[in-house]
Amino acid sequence: MAFRATVLTLYPEMFPGLLGQSLSGKALARGDWALDCVQIRDFATDRHRSVDDTPAGGGAGMVLKPDVLARAIDHVGEGDNRPRLLMSPRGRPLTQKRVRDLAAGDGAIIVCGRFEGVDQRVIEGRGLEEVSIGDYILSGGEPAAMILLDAVVRILPGVMGNALSGEHESFEGGLLEHPHYTRPQVWEEREIPAVLTSGNHAAIEKWRSEEALKLTRERRPDLLAAQPITK
Amino acid sequence: MAFRATVLTLYPEMFPGLLGQSLSGKALARGDWALDCVQIRDFATDRHRSVDDTPAGGGAGMVLKPDVLARAIDHVGEGDNRPRLLMSPRGRPLTQKRVRDLAAGDGAIIVCGRFEGVDQRVIEGRGLEEVSIGDYILSGGEPAAMILLDAVVRILPGVMGNALSGEHESFEGGLLEHPHYTRPQVWEEREIPAVLTSGNHAAIEKWRSEEALKLTRERRPDLLAAQPITK
Repeated sequence: MAFRATVLTLYPEMFPGLLGQSLSGKALARGDWALDCVQIRDFATDRHRSVDDTPAGGGAGMVLKPDVLARAIDHVGEGDNRPRLLMSPRGRPLTQKRVRDLAAGDGAIIVCGRFEGVDQRVIEGRGLEEVSIGDYILSGGEPAAMILLDAVVRILPGVMGNALSGEHESFEGGLLEHPHYTRPQVWEEREIPAVLTSGNHAAIEKWRSEEALKLTRERRPDLLAAQPITK
Repeated sequence: MAFRATVLTLYPEMFPGLLGQSLSGKALARGDWALDCVQIRDFATDRHRSVDDTPAGGGAGMVLKPDVLARAIDHVGEGDNRPRLLMSPRGRPLTQKRVRDLAAGDGAIIVCGRFEGVDQRVIEGRGLEEVSIGDYILSGGEPAAMILLDAVVRILPGVMGNALSGEHESFEGGLLEHPHYTRPQVWEEREIPAVLTSGNHAAIEKWRSEEALKLTRERRPDLLAAQPITK
């Protein structure tokens, strides 16, 4: 069964957006994955179709109502075993490992928050897993959902074909990727490092590993701290 | 002068995408910020309009050519002092502080990579600052550029108006945000914590601070490690 994403949002018109273009868009058209959106506002019950209310305890912003969001989630399906994700800066950071795990599954139900946040009781009551794509604040969960889906769809079977070169990519080995070079041999008096055109594959591999390690140490010592010592 | 973003990409049709909708789209239409795209392929010079070539030293994927990309960057403007960013998983992680710094400036020139990567010589030769939005791999730099711009545009003067409630947001104080609640008072037998409806503002502030600290300790001890001890 192909990967199926269901996005709960107040802005269904934002989708598929980027995901409808380039390789992910072609894969969507071929049926290599599926995307459907649910308008949360359709589950409001008052005559103003309200989805938010002021925060208990005061403060700025509005909070997404638990009853409305719960009805939207329940509509998608009790008995639907796909992971239920809530895109939120409060969540655990998305990693390439989590992306791979999601891609190996049936799909995901993705809730996009807006306003100040989502009522905590629906997060707990419906078992939503909060996922963060990074330590910055977005206009809402929709851009974050796009990022998560872009990362997942790209590694689904058939989507990238031979274009996928996962082995040497950043994070796949726990390190940032080594520098890349291509023709011309000399550009603005800058040469491609000689080892790369030596034809000595062992030396090339060694150089790339060393450069990856050096770059990671410089920019992301936190990634090295998470590595097994034998590496 | 309004914030001006210039995006260098092989997929200009992906923009403004999400950024043309909701509050950022209204702000774009009002002229609170500006966005223009440059098609990198327009700066190819061979008859096939090639923009990429095989990696020196071998391996999968293709590398964006230094000469073509440099011409595209130079076209945007020598003497243009906006920061030159390259969206890349090898970059330093984007933070809310960097977002605020960018929003306080004139704009940004944003290069979107595709394929396996960009020739290292053009990164050095044109002073590109590599920026990563998170530890996962995307189909290209375009989705990452959208995220960076969404985060920046949201805090530009006039964009969100009273809807912006920055004070208590995640990361603004170095902590994840406390839980939110709104009406109804009881939902599925779950009550709003009594303190939030007590009217005791000092107690509410204390509860929120404690919850924020607890959540951060549980999910993001790395953020606490980066805090001054007096906090």
